[in-house]
Amino acid sequence: MPTYTAPTRDTRFIVNELLDLASYGNLPGFESATPDMIDTVINEAGKFCAEVLAPLNKIGDEHGCTRHDDGSVTTPPGFREAFEQYRESGWGTISQPEEFGGQGMPHVLGFVIEEFSATANQAFAMYPGLTTGAAAALQAQGSDEQKATYLPKMISGEWLGTMNLTEPHCGTDLGMIRTKAEPNGDGSYAITGTKIFISSGEHDLTDNIIHLVLAKTPGAPDSTKGISLFVVPKVLVNEDGSLGARNGVSCGSIEEKMGIHGNSTCVLNYDGATGWMVGEENRGLAAMFVMMNAARLGVGIQGLAQAEVAYQNAVAYALDRRQGRALTGPAELEEKADPIFVHPDVRRMLMDAKAFTEGHRALCLWAALLVDLTHKAQTEEERDEADALLGLLTPVIKGYGTDKGYAVATDMQQVFGGHGYVEEWGMSQFVRDARITQIYEGTNGVQAMDLCGRKLPSKGGAAIQEFFKLAGEEIGAAKEDEELAPLAEKLEKALGEQQAATMWFMQNAMQNPNHLGAGAHHYMHVMGIVTLGLMWLRMAKVAQEKLAGEPEDKIFYEAKLATARYYMDRFLPDAGALRRKLEAGADSMMALGEEAFATAA
Amino acid sequence: MPTYTAPTRDTRFIVNELLDLASYGNLPGFESATPDMIDTVINEAGKFCAEVLAPLNKIGDEHGCTRHDDGSVTTPPGFREAFEQYRESGWGTISQPEEFGGQGMPHVLGFVIEEFSATANQAFAMYPGLTTGAAAALQAQGSDEQKATYLPKMISGEWLGTMNLTEPHCGTDLGMIRTKAEPNGDGSYAITGTKIFISSGEHDLTDNIIHLVLAKTPGAPDSTKGISLFVVPKVLVNEDGSLGARNGVSCGSIEEKMGIHGNSTCVLNYDGATGWMVGEENRGLAAMFVMMNAARLGVGIQGLAQAEVAYQNAVAYALDRRQGRALTGPAELEEKADPIFVHPDVRRMLMDAKAFTEGHRALCLWAALLVDLTHKAQTEEERDEADALLGLLTPVIKGYGTDKGYAVATDMQQVFGGHGYVEEWGMSQFVRDARITQIYEGTNGVQAMDLCGRKLPSKGGAAIQEFFKLAGEEIGAAKEDEELAPLAEKLEKALGEQQAATMWFMQNAMQNPNHLGAGAHHYMHVMGIVTLGLMWLRMAKVAQEKLAGEPEDKIFYEAKLATARYYMDRFLPDAGALRRKLEAGADSMMALGEEAFATAA
Repeated sequence: MPTYTAPTRDTRFIVNELLDLASYGNLPGFESATPDMIDTVINEAGKFCAEVLAPLNKIGDEHGCTRHDDGSVTTPPGFREAFEQYRESGWGTISQPEEFGGQGMPHVLGFVIEEFSATANQAFAMYPGLTTGAAAALQAQGSDEQKATYLPKMISGEWLGTMNLTEPHCGTDLGMIRTKAEPNGDGSYAITGTKIFISSGEHDLTDNIIHLVLAKTPGAPDSTKGISLFVVPKVLVNEDGSLGARNGVSCGSIEEKMGIHGNSTCVLNYDGATGWMVGEENRGLAAMFVMMNAARLGVGIQGLAQAEVAYQNAVAYALDRRQGRALTGPAELEEKADPIFVHPDVRRMLMDAKAFTEGHRALCLWAALLVDLTHKAQTEEERDEADALLGLLTPVIKGYGTDKGYAVATDMQQVFGGHGYVEEWGMSQFVRDARITQIYEGTNGVQAMDLCGRKLPSKGGAAIQEFFKLAGEEIGAAKEDEELAPLAEKLEKALGEQQAATMWFMQNAMQNPNHLGAGAHHYMHVMGIVTLGLMWLRMAKVAQEKLAGEPEDKIFYEAKLATARYYMDRFLPDAGALRRKLEAGADSMMALGEEAFATAA
Repeated sequence: MPTYTAPTRDTRFIVNELLDLASYGNLPGFESATPDMIDTVINEAGKFCAEVLAPLNKIGDEHGCTRHDDGSVTTPPGFREAFEQYRESGWGTISQPEEFGGQGMPHVLGFVIEEFSATANQAFAMYPGLTTGAAAALQAQGSDEQKATYLPKMISGEWLGTMNLTEPHCGTDLGMIRTKAEPNGDGSYAITGTKIFISSGEHDLTDNIIHLVLAKTPGAPDSTKGISLFVVPKVLVNEDGSLGARNGVSCGSIEEKMGIHGNSTCVLNYDGATGWMVGEENRGLAAMFVMMNAARLGVGIQGLAQAEVAYQNAVAYALDRRQGRALTGPAELEEKADPIFVHPDVRRMLMDAKAFTEGHRALCLWAALLVDLTHKAQTEEERDEADALLGLLTPVIKGYGTDKGYAVATDMQQVFGGHGYVEEWGMSQFVRDARITQIYEGTNGVQAMDLCGRKLPSKGGAAIQEFFKLAGEEIGAAKEDEELAPLAEKLEKALGEQQAATMWFMQNAMQNPNHLGAGAHHYMHVMGIVTLGLMWLRMAKVAQEKLAGEPEDKIFYEAKLATARYYMDRFLPDAGALRRKLEAGADSMMALGEEAFATAA
């Protein structure tokens, strides 16, 4: 049986020592996040996820969800009880606004809980996870009445929420949706259509499910400019807040998927269901992006999640399993063989995993701080700056984070050899669960185009210039330090590759936009590599400072420095190769027509 | 439902135009491989695999194999009948020796059939596939009586064979095996022990199964120098060749695996089963390597296989699925959206797949020709040269071929977006099936060490020097040609990276063997990239020559040239990054002790 321990020491390092969250006490909501409170939240959330959610992970994979003839869905054994505990403990309310019953604490702590729960049990974490996005959309665009009706119960976990975008013939291209919303004359609409791939679309965890649904009103423009957003509760809500009649939405089937079996991925049939418009008519896409941006960061965290749990289990296996001898001579002569931990190729995979998970955790929590600053920083300039940086980092966190997270989970399965391929050990599940993160909430190809086609050129490139400035300054400062200089110099080279790639886009993409499309994936990876490098430079700096004070857990800080060195040695070189691929442009990529791809007999 | 068409045009290009197989007519066995015969074998084998084996692939995944209480195993519906057809058609006998009932034709054609069958249905192809390795071991090391008893029926497919190496506590480190072989006094041995992960270990396809089993005789040295190989038939064979009593070997359970569900992966319990030693006592490892080398090439072909079928289905989907518009403006104005084929990021993944599968196919079939030359070339020098080159290429074909094959299959799943993640479309199966190829017959970490620790230094580096010479000469010749020069120059640079990496190993690995272990994976990938580059240079040259003759299928040859350019643009840059990682050495990789990997709470 695979195991999971929440990496609370590393999380406290990032939150307290790297981000120094307590120093933001002057921001609203942050005053309650005292050092004691921060540590308590991290430690208790970690305990809860490891003890309550993790043991259900494999059960969820094996049992999956069951749809009954009446369209109702049963979640895997234990999920209901665990959700009850999750709800009662209030873990989902930590960073939600106080006016709707949340605890109003920093998003940094909310992200910590998202990580721990997704790592312990991704399929489970998706039930409350998608609700966060749905609630964010209602909060941003809903009417006061809608907010009052739905938000307190969604935030408390009494009800859960979903996001309904995809239809059988359209996913990325939402301008093509066919679901109709016809006015009922009383302010409500009759929603009719079929939505697919709806995560947590139907289940037995709560009495009501609040669906947020994209649909088209009669005569709406035939494009993304003709989409509106509707709130459609599974059970209609009476004026006094009590539950009324069942609405006309039902689960037609559950998808059989490669992984995340514990989450019910539904086909939802809307058959004249009653819904209410959220925000303005034909402006549904903007509302959708509110949900989407929150969801994309959540998926980026999931990229970390499966890599982390797979890594923990691979470390345990590598220390336990004995095969062969160390290349430098037997390490444990009294045993018939050494633990495979001694083999460089095993260590390579473990170090890759350690460098990625710790680096990506730092990045995700920095992004969480930016979410907070976007809303709460004291000046408009600071808020705008945080917003621009967050917009730039979001596709990188989602796209690079899940590509690399999947690769790391696969490597950790590799550490197990044949035992990794049989389901018994649980490593296959981590890989199968991780695979969806590269696909949902916008495939990673969509993330790459969001980064390169939208975020890079936005406001004359202000955000990327800000990123370059910030990275350049930190590198410059680190170069002044003897110990950090070798790390900083390598990072400077990789940053130079990114800057050159950016310049190449500027000089070539206007003339042929396919050059941008052809290099977007490479660019996203270059930026991911550089950004994690920046996290490692920051972590090395903090570790160095702490070590000067002769701390008790010297090993922890020394490992940070050694892992930073490994990261610069083994991750950064790819930046140069990616830049060369990007600069090859679209010509050889787009040279061939359809007929050249046919398999000729 | 996924589909498969055997890429017979490409295969004929490689066999006839690139390798020019008919020109080897002076070698024994090759005289029957006339141009007509070659085309007939390729075309008919392709038809058989596409029509008979491919339709059973998803059925095999869904049904899996069933073990009954008596230990017998039922294969998925249709497998028995398909195997009957496979046996009757003689596809398995093409390149087997005539003295045991084979057709004695070149291995090149045998490899073609291995590819088509593994692509159509990997789980099915493994039943006859492992028999090939078992038969090779018997042929190389068995007594005349053993050969006469087993080989004709194994080659005809009347019986199938298995390879029994792994035990619960040991896989890679075979010196640790515990299975015992005690002399019965009549020349036979009583075999007792447990073997796991035995592919095709028990099934209903044939009346008998011939197990080749590694075991230890009493008092044998406690290392790989104490292993002997035994032949242990499931049903004992009477002197007249008829079947006798059931032997003491039984299937204890079937593993639940991530993929290849259609193949029965068994725990086999040997309970005093009667076996006969194959070859000399304590020399079982040498015999095992005969099986293993054949099996490793077979697995390298499987790396190609799942990438190929996933690619074919992704092309069809990309041409059918409409989402969004081309970046350069709508391609099909009369439709609501363009096929996703127009998007550069989709094309990037398809071109990666095309460049890999066609390049790796050329490499595998070149290796098959080397297998033939190893046995049949006219001078000892030619035979030795072929053998050295084949030894060098085998771990690259297996290790790089399956790492990249898995990555390509995963990319092809990505082309499908959410539809790739649901089992209905079949893309998940290709990825799940492909995943085992990186693990079995020696994990890819083992392949990397075989390449760098054994093959590189062997005979003073003669094989790698020969490879450099051969690649250097072809590059030099191509640089003389105006059209090929840009390709050749890029390849020359990548070859230079490999040469520098080789030199770095020579200068550093003696002093610290961990430097070799730390870079072996990177080296294997550098060599894979360079070797496929060499294949593309060769293919470009042939395509150029053909185009000069104004051929009918101009599109085919033009696509070869365009794909060669793409390969040089998009695959070769990684060679430089891998060299830089390799030259970082073992220090930062091995710096941390066990305690630094513990998850601290």
